[in-house]
Amino acid sequence: MPVSRQEFETVFPKLVEDLKEHAATYKLPEQAMQWFDKSMNYNTLGGKYNRGISVIDSAQLLLDRKLSDDEFFKAATLGWMIELLQAFFLVSDDIMDSSKTRRGQPCWYLAPHVGMIAINDAFMLESGIYILLKKYFRQEKYYVDLLELFHEVTFQTELGQLCDLLTAPEDHVDLDNFSMEKYTFIVIYKTAYYSFYLPVALSLYFSGHATVKNLKQAHDILIPMGEYFQVQDDYLDNFADPATLGKIGTDIQDNKCSWLVNQALKKCSPEQRQVLERNYGHKDQECEAKVKELFNQLELEKDYQVYEDKVIVQLRERIESLDESEGLKRGVFEEFLRKIYKRSK
Amino acid sequence: MPVSRQEFETVFPKLVEDLKEHAATYKLPEQAMQWFDKSMNYNTLGGKYNRGISVIDSAQLLLDRKLSDDEFFKAATLGWMIELLQAFFLVSDDIMDSSKTRRGQPCWYLAPHVGMIAINDAFMLESGIYILLKKYFRQEKYYVDLLELFHEVTFQTELGQLCDLLTAPEDHVDLDNFSMEKYTFIVIYKTAYYSFYLPVALSLYFSGHATVKNLKQAHDILIPMGEYFQVQDDYLDNFADPATLGKIGTDIQDNKCSWLVNQALKKCSPEQRQVLERNYGHKDQECEAKVKELFNQLELEKDYQVYEDKVIVQLRERIESLDESEGLKRGVFEEFLRKIYKRSK
Repeated sequence: MPVSRQEFETVFPKLVEDLKEHAATYKLPEQAMQWFDKSMNYNTLGGKYNRGISVIDSAQLLLDRKLSDDEFFKAATLGWMIELLQAFFLVSDDIMDSSKTRRGQPCWYLAPHVGMIAINDAFMLESGIYILLKKYFRQEKYYVDLLELFHEVTFQTELGQLCDLLTAPEDHVDLDNFSMEKYTFIVIYKTAYYSFYLPVALSLYFSGHATVKNLKQAHDILIPMGEYFQVQDDYLDNFADPATLGKIGTDIQDNKCSWLVNQALKKCSPEQRQVLERNYGHKDQECEAKVKELFNQLELEKDYQVYEDKVIVQLRERIESLDESEGLKRGVFEEFLRKIYKRSK
Repeated sequence: MPVSRQEFETVFPKLVEDLKEHAATYKLPEQAMQWFDKSMNYNTLGGKYNRGISVIDSAQLLLDRKLSDDEFFKAATLGWMIELLQAFFLVSDDIMDSSKTRRGQPCWYLAPHVGMIAINDAFMLESGIYILLKKYFRQEKYYVDLLELFHEVTFQTELGQLCDLLTAPEDHVDLDNFSMEKYTFIVIYKTAYYSFYLPVALSLYFSGHATVKNLKQAHDILIPMGEYFQVQDDYLDNFADPATLGKIGTDIQDNKCSWLVNQALKKCSPEQRQVLERNYGHKDQECEAKVKELFNQLELEKDYQVYEDKVIVQLRERIESLDESEGLKRGVFEEFLRKIYKRSK
């Protein structure tokens, strides 16, 4: 049985206590302690926890049994480290992207009295990962591997974010700057590594199956799967109901190098390209509406369906031909795919 | 012979190459590669390098000999990691403090086309530390200790920054919120750990003398020394020549919980307190001038001299009574003190 959001959430308060206890050893003043507590809860809770929960689900599949209470706690702790990593990225991305809402509430930097303090709060969320790794995994032979894995994936995500910000600056629209090649780099580095590869890599270390071959097989399925996930994300940003999605899409106004605009650029007429040139990336609802209309005219929803059907076939083939001889299991990837296939938020 | 700025700087281009090479293994697009290169050079170069150079100077003193070329390079690399850590903090602090200039040039976030991308650039400077640690120190038995040391000091600095931001928010002046106790927490955590303890701790690991006793003795001298350094910093922010200092002090306008305002609060009359209440922390040059005038009236320069004389006596006593039996050397601390005593920038 996959782990529920509720079960996963039961672990978080203990981790918040651990981090506050650690800060208390430094005699952190009370006002700052309360702030840290609030930031952790505001920024880490409320998502879907797909990444975090995947660590536990994958660990169960890899060990082929129910986890003991202690194992559940430790696997969940690894999962919460991904959620902390994501919180670190989202708090700062929201500032960089001038986003307004996140998970149905104001972005942290827009919450009362927060502002740019959010940057330091983001750092502290990242630091939480290493405090928890030290507390719970220091005695494991794979402790250094975990440290290096988090460092590497963090840097990869930062590279993706940098490329994204440079390809699609908010204040300068240049559609010639966009390409499917850049798009692919951005989505793989900004999203796929931390959202898809990282949870399974963690569960491989945790379950004792982190051989070079297994890590590579996982990588070669999960990176394309993460690419698919981000294409979905771009699709949902424009085509999903904001109430369901939990946020209002801003990719068009933010001049994002999204899958949709890249598809539009590939198939549009010179006249339609003019519409894009004049309206894409403007902080203006009318401009945005014209781009949305064009996306509808170009029937990008259909292209998305074609893309999705094709990528799903490829992923299923790769999962099918997986070598399970060193303890890796097809079920890990099937479960991943089940969670994201045809998602609406 | 202490190492010069120029000698220390010779190592940096190789480290920039290493980090770019690492990014190149991920096929980072050229535009992003150039940006990363520019950010590293803009944000890491141009300071005094006291922290970084201290690692090399301390290592020479601890080993009691000139370093080989390879040892020099490795000690300098550890030093540059502190400079990268500082660059990470300064780039983001400048955004959080709305600073305008840094080392005589515009803050990175105010440089053309940068803006909030600077947040991600700060993250990448931090990531550089761990990429270099892995490349050059992975084979050392103290590798994990270095990773944990950087994590711990990073978190400590973030706690100091949080307390600083909360005690002295830019938009809400409340002098009752200030106290010498909070001041001491802020300066120890925000500055002393990474600027004073970290370089010597690194040199202790590097030289093979990082016993528990040595780390503790170093800590117990360097933390008070770092406190003194920050008091100097606050003093210079107001009383130094901006041309010499390389920046324009903004502590008064930024509502900073500085040593000067805490001293003023201790000794001012009710009328003088009114002057502070009405003028401290306002983004207004006339208000700032009134506070500066009050600081002069209260003769805070003299109080600073009294404080400096006293703390120097205490530090010299503690250095004098140091136990050198496990390989620690008084000279390490004497050299540190020499570098900062009576500094003007």
